[in-house]
Amino acid sequence: MLKVTLLGGGNLATNLANKLLDCPQVTLMQIYNRSIQNIASFAEKTRVLDQLDLLEETDIYIIAVSDAVIEEISEKLSRKKGLVVHTSGAMHLNVLKNNKRRGVFYPLQSFTKNVPVDFSNVPFCIEALNESDFILLEKLASEISKKVYRISSLQREKMHVAAVFVNNFVNHLYRIGAEICSENEIPFEILHPLILETATKINTISPELAQTGPAKRNDFKTIEKHQKELKEENLKIYKLLTKSILNRNT
Amino acid sequence: MLKVTLLGGGNLATNLANKLLDCPQVTLMQIYNRSIQNIASFAEKTRVLDQLDLLEETDIYIIAVSDAVIEEISEKLSRKKGLVVHTSGAMHLNVLKNNKRRGVFYPLQSFTKNVPVDFSNVPFCIEALNESDFILLEKLASEISKKVYRISSLQREKMHVAAVFVNNFVNHLYRIGAEICSENEIPFEILHPLILETATKINTISPELAQTGPAKRNDFKTIEKHQKELKEENLKIYKLLTKSILNRNT
Repeated sequence: MLKVTLLGGGNLATNLANKLLDCPQVTLMQIYNRSIQNIASFAEKTRVLDQLDLLEETDIYIIAVSDAVIEEISEKLSRKKGLVVHTSGAMHLNVLKNNKRRGVFYPLQSFTKNVPVDFSNVPFCIEALNESDFILLEKLASEISKKVYRISSLQREKMHVAAVFVNNFVNHLYRIGAEICSENEIPFEILHPLILETATKINTISPELAQTGPAKRNDFKTIEKHQKELKEENLKIYKLLTKSILNRNT
Repeated sequence: MLKVTLLGGGNLATNLANKLLDCPQVTLMQIYNRSIQNIASFAEKTRVLDQLDLLEETDIYIIAVSDAVIEEISEKLSRKKGLVVHTSGAMHLNVLKNNKRRGVFYPLQSFTKNVPVDFSNVPFCIEALNESDFILLEKLASEISKKVYRISSLQREKMHVAAVFVNNFVNHLYRIGAEICSENEIPFEILHPLILETATKINTISPELAQTGPAKRNDFKTIEKHQKELKEENLKIYKLLTKSILNRNT
C-alpha cells in the first residue's frame, strides 16, 4: 500500500484527491492546503490540514500547487524521508533541490474545477532523481493512468513548447476561423466536424501525411485569392503558415 | 420521390452514390463518369454510363467532379430541364451559368475513398438561384444529413478561408509539434489527448473563452524562455501567433 500526501487545493489537486481516494493500492493519508476551506469537503475521507509542520511521514508527497509556490512548499518538506514530487509541466526537477528524494509527476491535460477528469487516459510524465524513486513513482502513476511516460526535465521543457503549438496556437486559429465566420454570418458550428476530424486523423496517420489544402498542393491561384480576402495580422499569419507548409513540400 | 443523376467517380461521388442508393425518398437513376471503370461496381444497382448525351431527364443532376471540369460538364447539361448543382466548396454558383436552374450542394468534410462516411453529421451547405430550387435541394440534403445550411457563394468563399485556418493550418501546427517531439525523443502520442481536448472544447465554449497558455495570461517570462528554444521559421510562427493572442487580450 502506497501512503500519499497531497498538497494543494486547486483544480488539479481536487481532481487528483478524488482519484487517489479511489485507488485500491493507495492511501491518501492527508491533504494540506494554505486555506483549509478549499479542501474541507475531503474532511470525511481523509485528514485535512493547513499547517505544514503537522504533516505525518508518508511514502510520497505530491505538491500540486501553482508554479510560483512549489519551491517555498518543498523547502518546508526538506526534513521528510519520503519522495517529494511536483506536478508542473513548466518546472525543472531541481526546483525541489532541498529534497534529497525528488521527482516530477506531471499529468499532461488541462483541468477544470467541478469537471471530473477521466485520469485513466491522461498521459503522466514522470521523472525522479533516483531509479528506485522512479519505480515508486511509476507504481503510483500506473494506479491512476494507463499512459505513463519517462520524460526528463529537458524533454518536458520541449514538450511544453510543442503543447503551445498544438493547443494554445491551434485554439487561436479556431478563434480566427470563428471570427471570419461571424463577420460573414456563417454559423461557426458548420466547421466543428472538420475540426474534430482534423484532430482525430492524426491518431492514425502522421500530421505530415494528413496535410491537405492549397499550400500542400502548390495551388497558388487559391492562395492568392485567399490572401485578397484577408488583411493585417490574419494576412500575415496566412502568409507565414502557407510559406511554412510550402517549405516542407518535396 | 426525387429522381437524381450523379456525375463523377471520385471519393465524394462514390460516397454520395452509396448514400443516395440508401435514401428511401430518393431514386439514383444513373451515374455518369468519363471512365466507366470507376463506377462499374454500381452497375447492379443503377444505370452506369460514360456518355453524357445518353443521360435521361431527372429532377436533380449532381456534378461531383474536380473543380477544373465542372464548367465543361455543366455546359453539356445545358438542355436539361432539371436542377444542376455542383459539390465544390471553392466554386461560385455561376460557374454553372449555362444552366438556367442551378445550385450548390456542398458537403463540408474531407472524403477518403474506401472509408465510408457517416453523412448524417456532415454539414451540407446549399444554395440555388431560384427559391423553388432551393426548397428542392433542401429536401434532398435533408434526406442525407441532419445538418443543412443555406450558404451563399460569397459566404462559401469566406468559409473556405476559415477552413484553411482551422484545418490546414491547424494540421501544420500539429506537424511542428510532432517535429519538436521527434527531435527530443518524446512520443508525439503524449500530446494526442490534449489535441483532442482542444478540438472538443469549442463544441461547448467559444474559442475566445477556451484560450489558455502563456500569451493569454501575459506570461512574458515563459514566452521569452520558449523563444530561446526555437529558431528560424518556427520562432517566427511563435512570435506572430503570440502577438496575435496578446493583441486580443483585454
